[in-house]
Amino acid sequence: MAIVGATGAVGAEFLRLFTERSFPVGELRLLASAKSIGKTAEFDGRTILIEEATEESFNGIDVAFFSAGASRSKALVPVALHAGALVIDNSSAFRADSGIPLVIPEINGELIKKESRLYPVANCSAIILLVAVNPLRKLGHIDRLIVSTYQSASGGGAAVMRELTEQTRAVLAGEGSPPAVLPHPYAFNLFSHNTDVDLENGYNGEELKVISESRKILGMPELKINVTCVRVPVVRAHSESVTVEFAGPAPTRTQVHEVLSQAPGVKVVDDREANHFPMPIEASGQNDVLVGRIRADLSNPNAICMFVSGDQLLKGAALNAVQIAEQYYNVANR
Amino acid sequence: MAIVGATGAVGAEFLRLFTERSFPVGELRLLASAKSIGKTAEFDGRTILIEEATEESFNGIDVAFFSAGASRSKALVPVALHAGALVIDNSSAFRADSGIPLVIPEINGELIKKESRLYPVANCSAIILLVAVNPLRKLGHIDRLIVSTYQSASGGGAAVMRELTEQTRAVLAGEGSPPAVLPHPYAFNLFSHNTDVDLENGYNGEELKVISESRKILGMPELKINVTCVRVPVVRAHSESVTVEFAGPAPTRTQVHEVLSQAPGVKVVDDREANHFPMPIEASGQNDVLVGRIRADLSNPNAICMFVSGDQLLKGAALNAVQIAEQYYNVANR
Repeated sequence: MAIVGATGAVGAEFLRLFTERSFPVGELRLLASAKSIGKTAEFDGRTILIEEATEESFNGIDVAFFSAGASRSKALVPVALHAGALVIDNSSAFRADSGIPLVIPEINGELIKKESRLYPVANCSAIILLVAVNPLRKLGHIDRLIVSTYQSASGGGAAVMRELTEQTRAVLAGEGSPPAVLPHPYAFNLFSHNTDVDLENGYNGEELKVISESRKILGMPELKINVTCVRVPVVRAHSESVTVEFAGPAPTRTQVHEVLSQAPGVKVVDDREANHFPMPIEASGQNDVLVGRIRADLSNPNAICMFVSGDQLLKGAALNAVQIAEQYYNVANR
Repeated sequence: MAIVGATGAVGAEFLRLFTERSFPVGELRLLASAKSIGKTAEFDGRTILIEEATEESFNGIDVAFFSAGASRSKALVPVALHAGALVIDNSSAFRADSGIPLVIPEINGELIKKESRLYPVANCSAIILLVAVNPLRKLGHIDRLIVSTYQSASGGGAAVMRELTEQTRAVLAGEGSPPAVLPHPYAFNLFSHNTDVDLENGYNGEELKVISESRKILGMPELKINVTCVRVPVVRAHSESVTVEFAGPAPTRTQVHEVLSQAPGVKVVDDREANHFPMPIEASGQNDVLVGRIRADLSNPNAICMFVSGDQLLKGAALNAVQIAEQYYNVANR
């Protein structure tokens, strides 16, 4: 097995999940860019040397998890596939390809087939949104989603997480700390997601991914999606304010609770008396996506509102990838 | 003149604005709760002793600015009015009274009349929203607003601002810092607004204020409003993700730019190439509400999206109050 991007924030979660889930790892090759050569990582009582990811890295590899950005994936995923590996790719490189399935196991796991060897992992905001929204399709036809995100530092990787904490420390000490990785000050601030903006329609790259990937995963190419993606000074879980508009009258809160309580990967956190709802600090480190603030949309009888928090590094990335690999083995060994 | 709540975060902004705007202050009485007796504040080269706000505090006072919470206002505003003062009240105590105008000078300043002596200042999230939304009524009939807020610590007052910075400092030092003023951890976290939740409909108090006060200020009792209010770890400016649905086809971005560029109290910050849009760190200390991310709603041809940031302590509180007083003097002296 190989991890490409082993020194990143998602790479560390892979190692933790392998142990937690007793994933059959076997030989483990930890790959990263040239600047990480010489570093090591601990796994299962072993100290493993980080190697540079090259075209020769994949000989004899059965599974390769990629989490090193789209350009690295574009270059090396074909090499890993050619070497015979099952590839789970956390980048956006292959998500839009019509012949390649985009899988969230709780939603469309049936697309995992022995003969398909490449599985991109969807955008983290889309995954966290859809784990909460998909179960509601039992309650009526969904016509439109309206989403505003509250996205954490981890979505930008370990360097952005470090920038948030170090810059905040400097600001509290009264010191200057100009932005280095991100384009804007991050301490006690928030801003439109830092991916490139489409100059024509004004949407940032994150928003366009949420729209196209949600439609692909749900198999609803016409689904209407209104989305605004915002980076907030939170370390590692994404939150989303979500309105779900149905084609007919909205389900009741009780119906939504019933469906979500039974939905895989979802935990309902919706205590009005205690004013206790999903928070990123409680979603961090949890496999489940937290869903709460379930209520009628007072402006539309066909809609409900809810608030969602999910760990960006887990269900938004590493966990979804490992779940795909686990399910692939189940299917392949059947 | 008197300020009730002179030691609070809004109180400090009043003093700064009086100097900045050459407001005719005259004698100044700084009032607060008993626990602030003995403190002092500097104004215009003078050191002023803080006095306890009592029923005797308003003799001879021409204008009283209240910013000390709804229960203090309910008790003392009638006393100040009886003493003959013009009262500008930042609390929610009198906002809903049908006989009392709720004024944002840029929107409905014509409601300021010599014979009306009590002016509540609206909820900060409603003010910041409406300064940006009201000008768009020139471009078509607004049918529905969809709003998710990103609200700063300052909305909870100086104690919450301190809790954010002190708790963040403790977390960065690896120390525990349990919530004291707020019900939830605040450092690198966010949560549903901490006002009480209506157990019946699930909306928090802040959301219900945005709905009722927006309708009153705009004079649109039927306006549909979908709103989710969230507290984020930002110090002093509120941001809001806003979708405006019109009764007919949405205006173009150019039309929206034109109208907002000429709107009082608004500054358009909408640079797609530089990915530079409204941010709370840039809205802080500014009188104008920043508006950007102006774009078509890809899910509804009748709607546009935008993102707004405004200083909660200024336009959301102290500035709006001082503007009302200034306009009252203009009207009364006409």
